[in-house]
Amino acid sequence: YLPPTRAKTLKPDEPCKRIVLYYHDILFNGTDLANATSAKITNDSALGSHFGMMVVFDDPMTEDNRLGSGPVARAQGFYFYDRKSTYNAWFAYTLVFNSTEYKGSLNIMGADPLPEKTRDLSVVGGTGDFFMARGICTFETDEVEGDYYFRLKMDIKLYECYQKGGG
Amino acid sequence: YLPPTRAKTLKPDEPCKRIVLYYHDILFNGTDLANATSAKITNDSALGSHFGMMVVFDDPMTEDNRLGSGPVARAQGFYFYDRKSTYNAWFAYTLVFNSTEYKGSLNIMGADPLPEKTRDLSVVGGTGDFFMARGICTFETDEVEGDYYFRLKMDIKLYECYQKGGG
Amino acid sequence: YLPPTRAKTLKPDEPCKRIVLYYHDILFNGTDLANATSAKITNDSALGSHFGMMVVFDDPMTEDNRLGSGPVARAQGFYFYDRKSTYNAWFAYTLVFNSTEYKGSLNIMGADPLPEKTRDLSVVGGTGDFFMARGICTFETDEVEGDYYFRLKMDIKLYECYQKGGG
Repeated sequence: YLPPTRAKTLKPDEPCKRIVLYYHDILFNGTDLANATSAKITNDSALGSHFGMMVVFDDPMTEDNRLGSGPVARAQGFYFYDRKSTYNAWFAYTLVFNSTEYKGSLNIMGADPLPEKTRDLSVVGGTGDFFMARGICTFETDEVEGDYYFRLKMDIKLYECYQKGGG
Repeated sequence: YLPPTRAKTLKPDEPCKRIVLYYHDILFNGTDLANATSAKITNDSALGSHFGMMVVFDDPMTEDNRLGSGPVARAQGFYFYDRKSTYNAWFAYTLVFNSTEYKGSLNIMGADPLPEKTRDLSVVGGTGDFFMARGICTFETDEVEGDYYFRLKMDIKLYECYQKGGG
Repeated sequence: YLPPTRAKTLKPDEPCKRIVLYYHDILFNGTDLANATSAKITNDSALGSHFGMMVVFDDPMTEDNRLGSGPVARAQGFYFYDRKSTYNAWFAYTLVFNSTEYKGSLNIMGADPLPEKTRDLSVVGGTGDFFMARGICTFETDEVEGDYYFRLKMDIKLYECYQKGGG
């Protein structure tokens, strides 16, 4: 006898929901108050590669990779760098949707080892239209411009989707 | 054929467990060392609306909204503000229960957009009496007193509850 | 009628997967740049017991408790202290596996009340070989050496394990 949880099968290529969005991090550089959407809240430690630098963000998410295409969601949360030898980040944040298409949020956390082409984080919960969802959010760096702008492709695949039953 | 996960239905009005508690954040103001239960650990950035200010807390949770009614749990974790134009917070914390009624913890994270009357965060896991639980925690601001005290009603609805089977 | 979620039973003693590893936190002391694997990013507040001190880490995980046995995974994330009267920490981190045995990650968060002999945190998601996993990570302090080194036994028990089905 196997408990039910042991027998579960999920197909990574068959999410019950998939959303691809682009994340634009526009870090405050000391002067661009109007444009900036994130701010550094702790300084680099002595360990190198920005180890210990933490950034809080309220970043726009767009459907194509042009910032000017207009946000369809916000990413609100933080990341920090946590490795000496290379750039490695760790993220925890919420994707907040408030559009005609979706209302609700997805909560995401995980490691972001930048040298890897793609990095998988966990979608650990959701609310509203994403009520109780779980899944994987795959990061891919789309653009880095100097120290104050980078763009990630976020490929969000949900494997647990719930219908909301009547009250 | 639909994989089992695609057919799942959950009724938001029918949690398997519901607990309503009040969260009291008593931020250290520089002098009230005896009463304070939270402390600011990073300063506001230049972006406004406390953007970037992070607070670590060990806050009492009460069954009614009077602080004096005595804590039935602790909320341990942090929040920070992350928006320029208005107050918007982001929380990650653990509700720690150690009472005759409950022993265990619930882990919670998500966005807290203060202008909304109610805000939904994710209960992403639990331990002890809340072993493996998942659900939604709905915030509602109950009181704000100046810069150093606010109170939230937290309406915790679990939709995944597990019985602990024999060892 | 009980919704399916209400009837679920899980046996704490019968995880679908169990991994025991040791976590070594080697905090930068100002001089040991070569050895340090973590760094303090915020200072203690006035509340005592390191309340408010936050540490970012990229710590080695070993199969036995000797650091010299060589890392089989990294723990990447942060902790902070959040209690006045005693040492109490809160962790959120990712276990990153990149060995012949496992490739993938586990995302973990929860409270760590140090005075308790064992402390349970939530495994809230996983990727790669731990695709969509959930479970419990039990901490036990194995060694504390002054202010700059401590070692935890982490007993990781997964109760939701998924087979990856064909694409």
